[in-house]
Amino acid sequence: MQAEIITIGDEILIGQIIDTNSAFIGKALNSIGVSVYQITSIQDEKEHLIKAFKEAEENADIIIVTGGLGPTKDDITKHTLTEYFNDTLVQNDLVLAHVEQLFEKYITTPISDLNRKQALVPSTCNVLMNKYGTAPGMWLEKGNKTFISLPGVPYEMKALIEDEVLPKLAHKYKRPFILHKTILTYGLGESAIAERLEQIEDQLPKHIKLAYLPSLGRVRLRLSGKGNDEDILSADIQTQVDNILPLIKDIFVGFEDNNNSIEQIIASQLVKTNQTLAIAESCTGGKLTQTFTQHSGASAYFKGGLVTYATQSKIDILGVDQAIIEEHSVVSEAVAKAMAINVREKLNADIGISTTGNAGPTKGDSDAEVGTVYIGFATKLGVKAYKFNMGNHRERVINKTVNKSLELLQKEIFEN
Amino acid sequence: MQAEIITIGDEILIGQIIDTNSAFIGKALNSIGVSVYQITSIQDEKEHLIKAFKEAEENADIIIVTGGLGPTKDDITKHTLTEYFNDTLVQNDLVLAHVEQLFEKYITTPISDLNRKQALVPSTCNVLMNKYGTAPGMWLEKGNKTFISLPGVPYEMKALIEDEVLPKLAHKYKRPFILHKTILTYGLGESAIAERLEQIEDQLPKHIKLAYLPSLGRVRLRLSGKGNDEDILSADIQTQVDNILPLIKDIFVGFEDNNNSIEQIIASQLVKTNQTLAIAESCTGGKLTQTFTQHSGASAYFKGGLVTYATQSKIDILGVDQAIIEEHSVVSEAVAKAMAINVREKLNADIGISTTGNAGPTKGDSDAEVGTVYIGFATKLGVKAYKFNMGNHRERVINKTVNKSLELLQKEIFEN
Repeated sequence: MQAEIITIGDEILIGQIIDTNSAFIGKALNSIGVSVYQITSIQDEKEHLIKAFKEAEENADIIIVTGGLGPTKDDITKHTLTEYFNDTLVQNDLVLAHVEQLFEKYITTPISDLNRKQALVPSTCNVLMNKYGTAPGMWLEKGNKTFISLPGVPYEMKALIEDEVLPKLAHKYKRPFILHKTILTYGLGESAIAERLEQIEDQLPKHIKLAYLPSLGRVRLRLSGKGNDEDILSADIQTQVDNILPLIKDIFVGFEDNNNSIEQIIASQLVKTNQTLAIAESCTGGKLTQTFTQHSGASAYFKGGLVTYATQSKIDILGVDQAIIEEHSVVSEAVAKAMAINVREKLNADIGISTTGNAGPTKGDSDAEVGTVYIGFATKLGVKAYKFNMGNHRERVINKTVNKSLELLQKEIFEN
Repeated sequence: MQAEIITIGDEILIGQIIDTNSAFIGKALNSIGVSVYQITSIQDEKEHLIKAFKEAEENADIIIVTGGLGPTKDDITKHTLTEYFNDTLVQNDLVLAHVEQLFEKYITTPISDLNRKQALVPSTCNVLMNKYGTAPGMWLEKGNKTFISLPGVPYEMKALIEDEVLPKLAHKYKRPFILHKTILTYGLGESAIAERLEQIEDQLPKHIKLAYLPSLGRVRLRLSGKGNDEDILSADIQTQVDNILPLIKDIFVGFEDNNNSIEQIIASQLVKTNQTLAIAESCTGGKLTQTFTQHSGASAYFKGGLVTYATQSKIDILGVDQAIIEEHSVVSEAVAKAMAINVREKLNADIGISTTGNAGPTKGDSDAEVGTVYIGFATKLGVKAYKFNMGNHRERVINKTVNKSLELLQKEIFEN
């Protein structure tokens, strides 16, 4: 059972936007046992669309097309797909009523003919209602092959995949099980890990693969397997996990399964142990806070985040002693500690975290080398701070510091 | 002159990582007049790699391959490419010396045979030295077709594209000019804009295209053109810009060229007018702050951001009067105003912005409908707050609120 994802839009090929849809769709298809054979991104150009549709139909059973469904002239997916299926466009009254309702409720400009044309669909398609937007999803069949056209707007596409596409595919096709188990490690490079795991890798059964995903201080080890019996497959993967874990005890952080990112693992543990968190950020500029608040349910454990970016705000808002800053500089162990202690107290939280560093490209208010970062932790047991050099690239320093903070926090709350 | 980008790695197809490399490469190639015909993402699987190489060779002049160059067994690009070129692997002494040096300088674990094998390259390739990592880039030619293999690690790939690939391609191929000009608008939907621009679109010259890129309260209008004379092409695009601007005066924000996003336009204006900014966020959870601090130079105008996520923190940290919250609820005009006034005062800034709302999926500490958001502005002239309904999807509410805040702030500082 193979799928191909086709994403359409000049903006992808000229690099104006990053295609995030394909990753979401790939993960979703895997969850119901469908493998993705290929992801193809092409321009809004009729001949190329038709060529891509043909090739995908040869290689895959399920073809998911996103993008090109807007009301403007540069969007040609719907017309091209209708032509590919030798079909004609007809008005769908349910879609029309939905478009009119959306305009009434959320949009201040009056509805136009362009908007109403969103209700035109190929006569043989099954409409997938798009509750968040005006462009409907479309489900078209050719024998045992299925073409699914979805809008490119991520949250519209996501809802359609979850509410409509996955249940319908699961109903139509018999599928094997695909399971992934990802081991999160922090603190060792991929080749050093690979050496430890060499014997295990040589003896992996054929239906299980091991992959290494290194990223800024973190390496994820992914075991993937495919099989017809979910329990047997799950046990086979677990056997490999049990073989691997004793060899990487010192760097093992947790498992990243089903949207279980490290911050979600941390969040669950904080809620379970009835602890709260507060964050004071300097060099990470709000990104650590946002990593937690992007997920719903954060209010159960998250007290607040203070982005004291300017030095003066560390004094005014966090109440860091000016003398400490003057003596040690703003990028220092002493300031990281003071920030963590004070944010914990001010927000009445169990755990306070702080970051202070030079993300670069210039040195800012401190003499510390670009890339120097301190991460502080305050709990009822006391305060600690750790020093790092995160390299000389701004985006990298910020992201590596966020990752390192999550790693340290995870250790902190699971070990204490 | 056409290129195809092939990104390799199971992690892309199963959705474990998002392919950000293709967008960077697409933009870089465009900048030297090379169009990207297609982006193809495939698994680490030999037959599929060879099939993709063949198809790309038929369709494109330049084939850029990223990924699959790691030292571990799941990485097969180098071996497969060598086989595709009927070549053999030989040791490159410069690369070996470089790998050894990297280990000496930055890595705490000892160098291994796996790492040394990174110095093996196809005998007929031109090595592209990778200053940030151990896997070298490789340049291989077949007549007038060029295959370029690069590591998948983004900052390694980026440096190789900029320092090696672009200059070499510019030297080898005669290319046209490709120019893009993107007009940023906020506050009107794409179809309403399309109606205003209908006549202009109908009369666009053949070598210029107009595309609409809508995203949560913002629409980008991109004019793209291709031609052999840069000055003429540039003038042709400018003519269209001059035609369009009078029709969208009320929603025009600026041009997004060369990383000139709305927050960077705002930042420049704040620095130019010597004004400072402070932010108090509730429902946006740090994202508005992070939008500014992700760029270097923020300390010139940014005082700090307070993410008062929990209701109590609005009282404790921002000093919002508990009575106001009790009387009006935490999602209210009164609270948005108090947050803006207080953050401005506490951080001693010229402009204070606040967000408070229900991002959903549940109502939280307020009775306001999910999607209800207030954005507050405090300046020396006084305080204002605006009410919106941002819809019923968490990620959308957050991003739309960030965009709307940027839109309002841009208007605020350019009009006052």
